[in-house]
Amino acid sequence: MTHPLHVVILAAGQGSRMKSRLPKVLHAVAGKPMLHHVIDTARALGAAGIHTVIGHGADQVREATPAGDIRWVLQEEQLGTGHAVAQALPNIPDDARVLVLYGDVPLIDADTLGHLADQVSDAAISLLTVELENPDGYGRILRDHGGNVQAIVEQKDASSEQLRIREVNTGIMGLSARHLKDWLPRLSNSNAQGEYYLTDVIAMAVDNDVAVRVAHPATAYEVQGINNRIQLAELERWYQAQQAQRLMTAGVTLLDPARLDVRGTLETGQDVVIDVNAVFEGRVVLEEGVHIGPNCFIRDAVIRSGARIDANTVIDGADVGAGAQIGPFARLRPGTELAEGTKVGNFVETKKARVGQGSKINHLSYVGDAILGRNVNVGAGTITCNYDGVNKHQTRLGDGVFVGSNTALVAPVSVADNATIGAGSTITRDVEAEELAVARGRQRNIQNWPRPQKK
Amino acid sequence: MTHPLHVVILAAGQGSRMKSRLPKVLHAVAGKPMLHHVIDTARALGAAGIHTVIGHGADQVREATPAGDIRWVLQEEQLGTGHAVAQALPNIPDDARVLVLYGDVPLIDADTLGHLADQVSDAAISLLTVELENPDGYGRILRDHGGNVQAIVEQKDASSEQLRIREVNTGIMGLSARHLKDWLPRLSNSNAQGEYYLTDVIAMAVDNDVAVRVAHPATAYEVQGINNRIQLAELERWYQAQQAQRLMTAGVTLLDPARLDVRGTLETGQDVVIDVNAVFEGRVVLEEGVHIGPNCFIRDAVIRSGARIDANTVIDGADVGAGAQIGPFARLRPGTELAEGTKVGNFVETKKARVGQGSKINHLSYVGDAILGRNVNVGAGTITCNYDGVNKHQTRLGDGVFVGSNTALVAPVSVADNATIGAGSTITRDVEAEELAVARGRQRNIQNWPRPQKK
Amino acid sequence: MTHPLHVVILAAGQGSRMKSRLPKVLHAVAGKPMLHHVIDTARALGAAGIHTVIGHGADQVREATPAGDIRWVLQEEQLGTGHAVAQALPNIPDDARVLVLYGDVPLIDADTLGHLADQVSDAAISLLTVELENPDGYGRILRDHGGNVQAIVEQKDASSEQLRIREVNTGIMGLSARHLKDWLPRLSNSNAQGEYYLTDVIAMAVDNDVAVRVAHPATAYEVQGINNRIQLAELERWYQAQQAQRLMTAGVTLLDPARLDVRGTLETGQDVVIDVNAVFEGRVVLEEGVHIGPNCFIRDAVIRSGARIDANTVIDGADVGAGAQIGPFARLRPGTELAEGTKVGNFVETKKARVGQGSKINHLSYVGDAILGRNVNVGAGTITCNYDGVNKHQTRLGDGVFVGSNTALVAPVSVADNATIGAGSTITRDVEAEELAVARGRQRNIQNWPRPQKK
Repeated sequence: MTHPLHVVILAAGQGSRMKSRLPKVLHAVAGKPMLHHVIDTARALGAAGIHTVIGHGADQVREATPAGDIRWVLQEEQLGTGHAVAQALPNIPDDARVLVLYGDVPLIDADTLGHLADQVSDAAISLLTVELENPDGYGRILRDHGGNVQAIVEQKDASSEQLRIREVNTGIMGLSARHLKDWLPRLSNSNAQGEYYLTDVIAMAVDNDVAVRVAHPATAYEVQGINNRIQLAELERWYQAQQAQRLMTAGVTLLDPARLDVRGTLETGQDVVIDVNAVFEGRVVLEEGVHIGPNCFIRDAVIRSGARIDANTVIDGADVGAGAQIGPFARLRPGTELAEGTKVGNFVETKKARVGQGSKINHLSYVGDAILGRNVNVGAGTITCNYDGVNKHQTRLGDGVFVGSNTALVAPVSVADNATIGAGSTITRDVEAEELAVARGRQRNIQNWPRPQKK
Repeated sequence: MTHPLHVVILAAGQGSRMKSRLPKVLHAVAGKPMLHHVIDTARALGAAGIHTVIGHGADQVREATPAGDIRWVLQEEQLGTGHAVAQALPNIPDDARVLVLYGDVPLIDADTLGHLADQVSDAAISLLTVELENPDGYGRILRDHGGNVQAIVEQKDASSEQLRIREVNTGIMGLSARHLKDWLPRLSNSNAQGEYYLTDVIAMAVDNDVAVRVAHPATAYEVQGINNRIQLAELERWYQAQQAQRLMTAGVTLLDPARLDVRGTLETGQDVVIDVNAVFEGRVVLEEGVHIGPNCFIRDAVIRSGARIDANTVIDGADVGAGAQIGPFARLRPGTELAEGTKVGNFVETKKARVGQGSKINHLSYVGDAILGRNVNVGAGTITCNYDGVNKHQTRLGDGVFVGSNTALVAPVSVADNATIGAGSTITRDVEAEELAVARGRQRNIQNWPRPQKK
Repeated sequence: MTHPLHVVILAAGQGSRMKSRLPKVLHAVAGKPMLHHVIDTARALGAAGIHTVIGHGADQVREATPAGDIRWVLQEEQLGTGHAVAQALPNIPDDARVLVLYGDVPLIDADTLGHLADQVSDAAISLLTVELENPDGYGRILRDHGGNVQAIVEQKDASSEQLRIREVNTGIMGLSARHLKDWLPRLSNSNAQGEYYLTDVIAMAVDNDVAVRVAHPATAYEVQGINNRIQLAELERWYQAQQAQRLMTAGVTLLDPARLDVRGTLETGQDVVIDVNAVFEGRVVLEEGVHIGPNCFIRDAVIRSGARIDANTVIDGADVGAGAQIGPFARLRPGTELAEGTKVGNFVETKKARVGQGSKINHLSYVGDAILGRNVNVGAGTITCNYDGVNKHQTRLGDGVFVGSNTALVAPVSVADNATIGAGSTITRDVEAEELAVARGRQRNIQNWPRPQKK
């Protein structure tokens, strides 16, 4: 019989050094609140229960966190980590294994925790420790000659010899619920802070001849807690460096691994090239052979095989067809669907626009709430007038339509296949197939016109 | 009685390794000439006199430096640091304390100098020294067993034992004017360079039983002199890294502290977020909750609470109201005043434009020399034609005006409250309240129009 | 008599760790395939013959490489470096000196190789070795007490003492063709990989009392081989850091040397300033006093004295005149020639456009296939309608022409000197000198117009 795994996440602290109105655990790493990283890791472990202890900013934390499998536990007063875990305990079955995690230690890895949890039994608790270059300020792990953990000694209580120990306590541990239910009520708050410390259960385990097993993270960054924005930025950059390494290992060319930001998931095909300063948010797919130019911002988008996104392009909520050429200075907004071989050029904005194969919107245009057929040519300075002040209306352009430059298409309006719109027209009525529509004033040339004088 | 503080800044050198037409001291760190950093620091000390010794490019230096409290001293020939200080001496009262600073050592800190100056008396001079990892090339500080400075020995004259000393002379010192007036005339130029070295006064002090007190900078960067553009870039990046630390400590989230440039002053409220590659120039204020997207350039601007500046936006001389949404790809030029809740979107340029609460200019427009009321909607492709070739004219749009897309507003022109402009119009006459104005050609559809043939 | 220099470049490997469809040697450093770097270096050495041994992706490699002086040698099966060199040997004269280089070791320096080649004679071969901090995995150089190379011992065969040797074999060597023709046929493939190793000729040289001379690169990066995209990125960044150092030493101010990319050649005059994130491709010339703003992308362009390129500008194939002001958000495409003192502003695209002295295109315009005279003012929202769907036509604007805003110029069309175009016009007929041309609808104001209702 396996013991169900329950995770307790401590997320009640204030984080005053963040100097923020936002509760600390909602500050983001890679675009995702720290607490959500930890929750997602708990889910990856297949936890039977995820108990999140909240306190400072409890309402904000709950509102910012998609509901579902989270069991919220309110810690009214912050009386220490032992007290926090105790609040969650009534909801946890006696036969459970319990992992204690922290909402401000966001990058703990599921593999590390799996190993930690595997060691928990009725006869053993499991402690995550790490060797630090500079262990200053952390509780040191004391071991006996057999290597068994004997105690954790805090910095201020440590002898000069103990201070040289570089293995420290991360606070992350795994225990049986039974042990917790036995030990937590016996914690004392007779200490300088007047708090109940979870760490004190280690001594109880030793006293009770319960083995203290140890696991280690793959890197100290996994157990890095965040107390201020300098630490937040350090962890952000480490996370991003890891993303860069992962992408390069998978066969992506990065022109500068130090100038890449992935805030979400980035899937890549073979031979993708990403130039400097790309920022990706949400779920982005770059298929084989895609090229991303410098200074692009791309969110929630699929860029299909061989498409080329040129410099300074902003994409959000778009599907870009194979071999398309976008930018520089293009801006694709949500609902943009560009078919194969399309082109969207400089100073062009699209929104809710379905654009057929081979069509081009090369310059200085706004195409919104529009359906374009194949091989449409939209001239420079074309505007779909989709908004009358209260309602949005649609523009339809058939296959092979040629829209002359500086044209306003006043929606709702349809232009049928192979029709032509003369440059400078404001089109308010539908145009049939093969027709030419022109709507502009007649040109008058006036001789010897006196120019305005300087006033 | 306190002795007035006079600062002498040596700024006469050529800086040939800069390979520049600009005198070395005018090269900028964080957007401000090095000399101006030093002058501002002297002002922060409350100096009674600031004597700047100039030589190479003297006219350029004077022209580039806002007049006021600076006393310029021309050193006709560059005969050494001692000679340079001597040129300033006639203007300094006998009872003064004198600090000697350098125009190419820009980041010396006022606190460091305050400490240095405090040690100066009739019985003591004060020398700024620093410990360097690699002291190669610098004059080493020799101390006796009591720790008293005995002498400075130059690299080339040092024994192998002396070369191991890592405490070096920075050249920055404080002395009484009386001592300077006594010692400077006695300097000799019997050395390889044939120059009068200020450093030689240390030996004179020791000979005269005047104590040599010592102060240290908080970091060696404070006393880093600049001789070429590699050193200039190193100091620039260190300065910027300090700005990033300062901002994060104050509670600003920086997505990448290594990709931030602050060239001027940046004031920030609570919970400001700054994405990668922001560049700030001049005086910028970011109020609480402001979000700056990637690759933005912002100069001399106030961005009010909760405003959001999206990617690739350029702002110069603007006031952006609370909760406004700007960009991506917006460009706000001087004289732009955007009220609360306004929107300025992609490929929009504003200049001398006062925009009322809740108004929107979302796409591809130029709004210059204009006053917009509240809740105005400016359609895509709207141009205020403010320039007739010689004069600029104003456009006024009342509250609730709706400007259809692709409209030219030929200034001077007024559109009164709640008027509507039809898309594609060129408006040359005023429009009254509630009116619809249309000015466009009538649409003609011509059947079976033969398209141009390939030539 | 000098012995002609022949270079053999080994470029037949697959590079499976690149995870690419592109042969490894075609992956680029600084925008140029690695193999082309090596070929260019061979040319710089004045090689009488450049023999490139290809195998995997041979057709791709040949197609990607400009023909000319390259002699392609197909290695059908990859049987080792010795076998590869042997394939090239029949084409190399007996009296030649031969340098063996590698297509995936791109940054080897011509000076280093010149030194290596100079040591080759009938009595000596020449080996390039390098001292590494961490020599793990490389063949160590064994020397006798006189310092003479005795052998190369591979990592797996080395004693613990030999493993401490930090001088390693780079694989790059110089030999007489005679020696190669003598030794290569005698190589054995009795080893774990079953390959013929070029390295084994070192032992043959020692056996034959042929001296093994040694040369060293200036930096280990010169001999860094590329096996995956992480190494590729490391070499890219090192290369770019070198470019930054070179430019700063030459007197260019870089606001951030870590945020500069030069992929081609960049020539600079005195007092050029380059702000953050500039990317240069192809051949770019920045004359004296040019200022490049942040986030600019510039390819194949000449920017003349004192021109200023503002933030977020993209330039490709343009010639920008002295004192011109470009950007922010400008996009100059091939065939753009801007005379002295011109201005091209935000959201403006130019292509095949010759613009005369002092002319201005300041806002939101497309100017393509156009010739503009001097002092032309092109208003905001001006479009040259150069394309009729099949053909491109030209627009000509004479000196002093004033084009009102929101104008469409339907090419072919000419506007003569000092003519004026009224705002909002679509111009289809030529305009004579001094004329005013207007082509727009008459404005009608309709009272009490009922606005659309929310549906």
